[in-house]
Amino acid sequence: MTETSKVTTAARPKFLRKGEQTRAAILDVALELASRDGLEGLTIGLLAEKMKMSKSGVFAHFGSREDLQIEVVRLYHTRFEQDVFYPSIKEPRGLPRLEAMFARWVKQVTVEIALGCIYISGAVEYDDRPGAIRDHLVAMVQAWRDALERCIKQAMEAGHMRPDIDVSQMVYEMYGLILALHHDARFLHIPGSVERAEASFRRLIESYRPQGSDSAASAPKNSKSAAKKAA
Amino acid sequence: MTETSKVTTAARPKFLRKGEQTRAAILDVALELASRDGLEGLTIGLLAEKMKMSKSGVFAHFGSREDLQIEVVRLYHTRFEQDVFYPSIKEPRGLPRLEAMFARWVKQVTVEIALGCIYISGAVEYDDRPGAIRDHLVAMVQAWRDALERCIKQAMEAGHMRPDIDVSQMVYEMYGLILALHHDARFLHIPGSVERAEASFRRLIESYRPQGSDSAASAPKNSKSAAKKAA
Repeated sequence: MTETSKVTTAARPKFLRKGEQTRAAILDVALELASRDGLEGLTIGLLAEKMKMSKSGVFAHFGSREDLQIEVVRLYHTRFEQDVFYPSIKEPRGLPRLEAMFARWVKQVTVEIALGCIYISGAVEYDDRPGAIRDHLVAMVQAWRDALERCIKQAMEAGHMRPDIDVSQMVYEMYGLILALHHDARFLHIPGSVERAEASFRRLIESYRPQGSDSAASAPKNSKSAAKKAA
Repeated sequence: MTETSKVTTAARPKFLRKGEQTRAAILDVALELASRDGLEGLTIGLLAEKMKMSKSGVFAHFGSREDLQIEVVRLYHTRFEQDVFYPSIKEPRGLPRLEAMFARWVKQVTVEIALGCIYISGAVEYDDRPGAIRDHLVAMVQAWRDALERCIKQAMEAGHMRPDIDVSQMVYEMYGLILALHHDARFLHIPGSVERAEASFRRLIESYRPQGSDSAASAPKNSKSAAKKAA
């Protein structure tokens, strides 16, 4: 636990008070457990055991089990933003950024092939279970989809992609590739699923490229200055 | 239960003995419960309550809870074959058959948007839980994918699709569209998800059509005799 607290403290802009450190350490472990067993598999009892704390000690940091589950969803989202979203928006606006978003998303799922993904398992756990946890999950998945939609629109504006794309449909197709990657790698144990996802994404991008553009090479890579200008 | 037994008996080629009737009726209810709560949510207690039977009465028909879960997976697969696979293979070999398989698969998922899908929820439930139930699920999902692969190969041979298609990749992409449909309709409640899946499939087919073929119209529909000849 000391190790975890250290890491957490080091990564944060200001020093955390003792209570905040403990809370952050509990959340770290809770996220790990929820990734493995699902959000519904997360119990205060198991968490207390892992943390070598009493149940009431854990409860002192979270009002209820549901509050804890929601905080786990929030933490997952924050990490997803840090690992996938923020590094990607450093890329030039348009297709280079969209490619970065997809590549990092695939990388994220690859890590989660061993661990399990809160968003994907959560979607199945809560698809018929209304309530605050479901609402939070939906809102955060939707935020990511909105970011993808914005990025596709910018790629259209920059001329990297056809101007008549149905943006929601392209997001739907990208999401399908990610869900299939998770399914094939984690459930069916099919080797080469990551390469498959990447190849399918390249095919997808090609099918949305402006007509007459060079289909063999990626335009933005060959016209970095144009892409930067658009950003 | 009398109603269920009647229906079950009527649909079967020969009269079932009393014990077989009861077993079939239990399985019907078990499939319904597993669709709603997941295979892991299926308990003998709940099933006995629903059937107005004793727990030992239910156990008399199935050696163990695991045997019951496996029988539910088998029943689901049999129904999937009846509703999706067998009617589709009546279509001419090649693209018409592939289109029928996808259309019926989408219809199946549409029904399951309310009910839940054993294959999709099972994939998440059992992705890190080795054992006989997982093995059965994987084998049955794989059987369906093999059928899709065979059908795509026939479409290539019939000239409906390019001869250089990576068949596994196309199956991967079709599977992604179905998973995204289930996800968007059941978890995110996005209206028009079925039309989205159908439009994406048409785009997918187009991208695999032979170069120079009429991209505005579906070739097999315009050359039914050719398709029939190929079958």
